[in-house]
Amino acid sequence: MRVLIVGIDGYLGWTLAMYLGKMGYEVYGTDNGSRRKNVEEVGSWSATPITSLVKRTSMFHDIFKIPIITSTVDVTNTDETYGFFNFVEPHVVVHLGEQPSAPYSMMGPKHANYTQTNNIVGTNNILFAMRDVTPEAHLVKLGTMGEYGTPNLDIPEGFFEIEYRGRKDTMVFPKNAGSFYHLSKVHDSENIRFACKTWDLRSTDIMQGPVYGVVADETTPFELLTRFDFDGVFGTVINRFTAQAIIGEPLTPYGSGGQTRGYLSLVDSMKCMKLAIDNPPFSGEYRVFNQFDRTYGINDLARRVCKVAKEFGLNPTIDNIENPRIEKEEHYYNPDHSKLENLGYIPTRSLEDELRITIPILMKYKDRIEAKKEAMKPKVKWSK
Amino acid sequence: MRVLIVGIDGYLGWTLAMYLGKMGYEVYGTDNGSRRKNVEEVGSWSATPITSLVKRTSMFHDIFKIPIITSTVDVTNTDETYGFFNFVEPHVVVHLGEQPSAPYSMMGPKHANYTQTNNIVGTNNILFAMRDVTPEAHLVKLGTMGEYGTPNLDIPEGFFEIEYRGRKDTMVFPKNAGSFYHLSKVHDSENIRFACKTWDLRSTDIMQGPVYGVVADETTPFELLTRFDFDGVFGTVINRFTAQAIIGEPLTPYGSGGQTRGYLSLVDSMKCMKLAIDNPPFSGEYRVFNQFDRTYGINDLARRVCKVAKEFGLNPTIDNIENPRIEKEEHYYNPDHSKLENLGYIPTRSLEDELRITIPILMKYKDRIEAKKEAMKPKVKWSK
Repeated sequence: MRVLIVGIDGYLGWTLAMYLGKMGYEVYGTDNGSRRKNVEEVGSWSATPITSLVKRTSMFHDIFKIPIITSTVDVTNTDETYGFFNFVEPHVVVHLGEQPSAPYSMMGPKHANYTQTNNIVGTNNILFAMRDVTPEAHLVKLGTMGEYGTPNLDIPEGFFEIEYRGRKDTMVFPKNAGSFYHLSKVHDSENIRFACKTWDLRSTDIMQGPVYGVVADETTPFELLTRFDFDGVFGTVINRFTAQAIIGEPLTPYGSGGQTRGYLSLVDSMKCMKLAIDNPPFSGEYRVFNQFDRTYGINDLARRVCKVAKEFGLNPTIDNIENPRIEKEEHYYNPDHSKLENLGYIPTRSLEDELRITIPILMKYKDRIEAKKEAMKPKVKWSK
Repeated sequence: MRVLIVGIDGYLGWTLAMYLGKMGYEVYGTDNGSRRKNVEEVGSWSATPITSLVKRTSMFHDIFKIPIITSTVDVTNTDETYGFFNFVEPHVVVHLGEQPSAPYSMMGPKHANYTQTNNIVGTNNILFAMRDVTPEAHLVKLGTMGEYGTPNLDIPEGFFEIEYRGRKDTMVFPKNAGSFYHLSKVHDSENIRFACKTWDLRSTDIMQGPVYGVVADETTPFELLTRFDFDGVFGTVINRFTAQAIIGEPLTPYGSGGQTRGYLSLVDSMKCMKLAIDNPPFSGEYRVFNQFDRTYGINDLARRVCKVAKEFGLNPTIDNIENPRIEKEEHYYNPDHSKLENLGYIPTRSLEDELRITIPILMKYKDRIEAKKEAMKPKVKWSK
């Protein structure tokens, strides 16, 4: 089965390429290099030293004798996208090639517009290329649990049946995104749903929670580690806490710290994507998976990271700081997540066990985290 | 009160400029000229011969002694937009400056992307310019009733209270758009709602039905008539039927013709926008108006246009043709529209009376319609 990974140079993309390659899938990928550039723009880098995409693909081949074929096609270019689809003829397209940072999208009008146009145009070009080149292909698209926001209701997986003024219909569950980035994913979701309905395409839209960890496979050689962002713009919360613990900086939950979200480990993200790939929807079907292991409050996460860090001789503290975002800090949160379970998803290990794998690996790169310590502070505010 | 009309060279924009100018508002406007260019691209033109924006503004001033100040600022350019907001310091921004055609957006990937980026980036730049330059200004934004699609439920004005698994919340009513154009308006609506919530901006998001008619004010001199599109891409249905009747072509409802929508006349669109302008929402409020007079089925509309056309010696026929769109042709449709009524909106006249004003004006331009007859056929299909 030929899998085309868009955004193959990213945190999830590179991990998935290795994961699927080892499982026997034919892996193709593309990346326009924007993630490296954008992280550099905000004054940071990956904690793990990553070599160029071409070099690490070649190293992976040398070590495992598995080819991964990559290009620098930018999916925001329609003609390049069509050309690449004609070349690869993918059975599955995993679209991870988006600007993934909420704070980055809130830096100002140009960053908001870049995020939305980059994400929307890339997804639209993929949908059109699927329509015209590979109409049977399955699009696995990474959205985010953040599309839903924090309503005072249970959150179903995409759709719900409602009764309103005595009539019934099955409707898309209303979204309530909290940044221009999260909004870009809502826009994508609506565009994909329309394309499936209108052109009989098939797609799995994954509402994923924040991911943590640095390896999906503990045998990964150090030179093949995926990128690991820890700055205030691109680092997700558990990874940022872990990096703070390692360099002895206080862990900084935003605000009162009651924000609750669903999280999952890097390996579980891979397992879930593989389940989606192996169990495609039918032609014309747009289905939504809420993809996470379990929910945690932010303060609870900080305490858990501290506890495990102490096992490694670290002595972290916690310092709740002013929330740069505008979001509810205490709220109801109860999203469904049974569709992946029904396909066989079983969480791999506890957060604590995952941290016990991540911390010693990252400790080797303490100097690289230390060098970009300034970039860990939250500099982007949501308010005017 | 200073009103900035974005898209002042369009069908609604130019009509609104004259309408508000005569009512004593200080009118500023901008237009990047894209509508003229895009209509030319699909092989058509305005039935009414329109001179350049600069010339008609100057003629309007000569005749009525009322200044309208215009520019060619393109709101998809962030810096130009900020500059124009600093110059005008508007109290109200009426944003009509979007690519408004569903078929145009379905012509292919480049047209879909152009439509979505043009519309989203323009709206985002206006939101940021409001945040940074005129935070008290009121954004009156033209959306479309088409954002909702045709659910099997009553359609409230933007929001509804729902009960789901025993819990209650007030949520945005789920959208179900039927083209990349309609989707662009859904995306705008979500971006605007977020900006109001996050930056305390105020906005009226108008879900407008298709508009018909050629003048809001019967004393409009012929040389100041607004544009009137009748082609298969930019012409809305009643205007297209009217043009078909005038040149003796059969009126062509799509499919079985049971599609039902809410419509309003050009003068009523002006009246409603004025009501929105005169009754602004409070700071931080994002409100939604469903803006139409009454609903009609397409077949019924065709019959009504025929009947009135006969009063003018025309002898039109009706020929239902294959539907180029993918849409329900029989469906429930019952949208609320009481908010504008509560502000004092009373429909001006019946569809038939409006047609009795429109037909004789357009009959003067029969040759111009005849000349672009080919462009009236629906050439853009929704299917692959």
